[in-house]
Amino acid sequence: MSYTVGIVGATGAVGQEIRNVLETRDFPVERLRIFGSARSAGSTVATKYGDVTVELFDVAAAKQCDVVFLAVSGDFSLEHARHLTQGDDATVCIDNSSAFRYEADVPLVVPEINGAETKKSKLIANPNCTTAIALMALWPLHQLFGLKKVIMSTYQAASGAGQPGMDELTQGTQAYLNGEAVENNIFAHPLPFNVIPQIDKFQSNGYTKEEMKVTWETRKICGLPDDFPLSCTAVRIPTIRAHSESIVVETERPVDVAAARQALAQAPGVKLVDNTEQLEYPMPQTATGQYDVEVGRLRKSIVYGDYGLELFVCGDQLLRGAALNAVLVAEEMVTNGSLQAKKTA
Amino acid sequence: MSYTVGIVGATGAVGQEIRNVLETRDFPVERLRIFGSARSAGSTVATKYGDVTVELFDVAAAKQCDVVFLAVSGDFSLEHARHLTQGDDATVCIDNSSAFRYEADVPLVVPEINGAETKKSKLIANPNCTTAIALMALWPLHQLFGLKKVIMSTYQAASGAGQPGMDELTQGTQAYLNGEAVENNIFAHPLPFNVIPQIDKFQSNGYTKEEMKVTWETRKICGLPDDFPLSCTAVRIPTIRAHSESIVVETERPVDVAAARQALAQAPGVKLVDNTEQLEYPMPQTATGQYDVEVGRLRKSIVYGDYGLELFVCGDQLLRGAALNAVLVAEEMVTNGSLQAKKTA
Repeated sequence: MSYTVGIVGATGAVGQEIRNVLETRDFPVERLRIFGSARSAGSTVATKYGDVTVELFDVAAAKQCDVVFLAVSGDFSLEHARHLTQGDDATVCIDNSSAFRYEADVPLVVPEINGAETKKSKLIANPNCTTAIALMALWPLHQLFGLKKVIMSTYQAASGAGQPGMDELTQGTQAYLNGEAVENNIFAHPLPFNVIPQIDKFQSNGYTKEEMKVTWETRKICGLPDDFPLSCTAVRIPTIRAHSESIVVETERPVDVAAARQALAQAPGVKLVDNTEQLEYPMPQTATGQYDVEVGRLRKSIVYGDYGLELFVCGDQLLRGAALNAVLVAEEMVTNGSLQAKKTA
Repeated sequence: MSYTVGIVGATGAVGQEIRNVLETRDFPVERLRIFGSARSAGSTVATKYGDVTVELFDVAAAKQCDVVFLAVSGDFSLEHARHLTQGDDATVCIDNSSAFRYEADVPLVVPEINGAETKKSKLIANPNCTTAIALMALWPLHQLFGLKKVIMSTYQAASGAGQPGMDELTQGTQAYLNGEAVENNIFAHPLPFNVIPQIDKFQSNGYTKEEMKVTWETRKICGLPDDFPLSCTAVRIPTIRAHSESIVVETERPVDVAAARQALAQAPGVKLVDNTEQLEYPMPQTATGQYDVEVGRLRKSIVYGDYGLELFVCGDQLLRGAALNAVLVAEEMVTNGSLQAKKTA
């Protein structure tokens, strides 16, 4: 069986990667439709399935698809996603925004962890990039040792702010090297050769929304209690499109570093990169463009002793952090029968 | 009273900053002597005290100084520091290397914390840059709430590898932007737009030596038990000369964020930069070139509840992390009488 697939926001960084991932993973695409704003409608995108003309987004037209990927703002998703997934002509909708992630009736899915949740709803939320990358490592460790506490600090790339973010970083870096003023319109401060310990808005508890997303989403995806203690410090650094994360966990059961390595080496979506003698560990340079999240620097924690592990992970923000996860959700729905091809007129 | 001051390694990044700090803080310099290798000997350095000709390093000549700053390799310090500080003609020696930091008879000093230790020895060790920067924030918090556990992840600048490190970063970044190959001789991997979760050599416990330095030195400087639980993940990122640190502490006593802010605002060597409404927090862009360590992002920890704080700090690696601390040690020794001017012939 093959499917009519729609992408809304296909000209953005995440939307482009969704198309790439569909193509490289041979997702069974019968027809690809691309929806955009009035600005991009009418333009042509060259795809593996032939040239596709961008259509002006319209709920009725999008509902002709079997599955629609939303790679747009949360406001756009809020306005349209429920309409797409309701009624006799409902379509499956996989939303990359944060708009529905905390709604009780909307599954928030990392397929390798809670893929079965996709059977419960036509509207599926894709997690925050930092969460999705962290969980590829944390889930196997949770299975092995039981997570009790998680403390993480992130090293997040400019791609989290899309193509404009990446452009602002590279153009600003060149300006800096030229001795010129560095402009910042996307980021709160100039990012070249700087570190910005703020991503998204500040909340009343002093954490940013990005930091709280990691806490809230990890609890929901992993089925952990609502007060599960996970704290994150989310930091923007001058890298282009892979997020790194320094993670310390306290565990319920004693840790065995060799067993952790073995489990991670076998975990889907993970590449164990942990050979300190060869100076091999996760890095943006090697993780960029890769589907798998690199995990390494595994060691028993000085702070938690036998009941703690420290690790470092690095994953492509646009792939595991967004596009790949979304396409894997669709693949899971094909496999479990949640995604069906419509009988087209 | 004023002093004959020697700097060994004055042409390196730290040595240059020691001279700058002596000048800008009006340290009572009677005469400045600069010692170097055969390569730099004979060259002239313009200083506030007039032009100084670099002398070939020689123990006897250096001992004519009242205080000598060593801004050289650990191997050099190991070979010469004890000779400088022993005998009737002993001089005070403030060593920036890690060679003597863990020797029982050598005080390891951050003047604002344990300046009185300088009375015990003519050889004083200057701490690791990451340690010195972290402790400016941690010490006042320890006084207030009692530290029980510390977990930190660092964002360390290229300057940790001296001027060659800074040059490799900026030249490599230009090469990257030109689409050329990026060379790495100083760092284990190319640093431009990358993250390298390794600084110094790996130890048998899986931590790097840089990470263990923070643990060992914090215990010694703060007088904490030998098994005090502090763990660090030390990460090199593409910034030039200020280190950032994400720190989570568990405390013995309940925390009060307002009291923490007040204590930090009054702490010497600290600049409280913690106004999230104005998007003000510590950053390399603002901390570079400053004596004070910026501290902000203070919040009650999700993980430790009433018994935990999270914070972000940023300090100039060459100043508080090296040169400023060394000069403050000398100032402390002037004040407490440990540094005396010799009667010269």
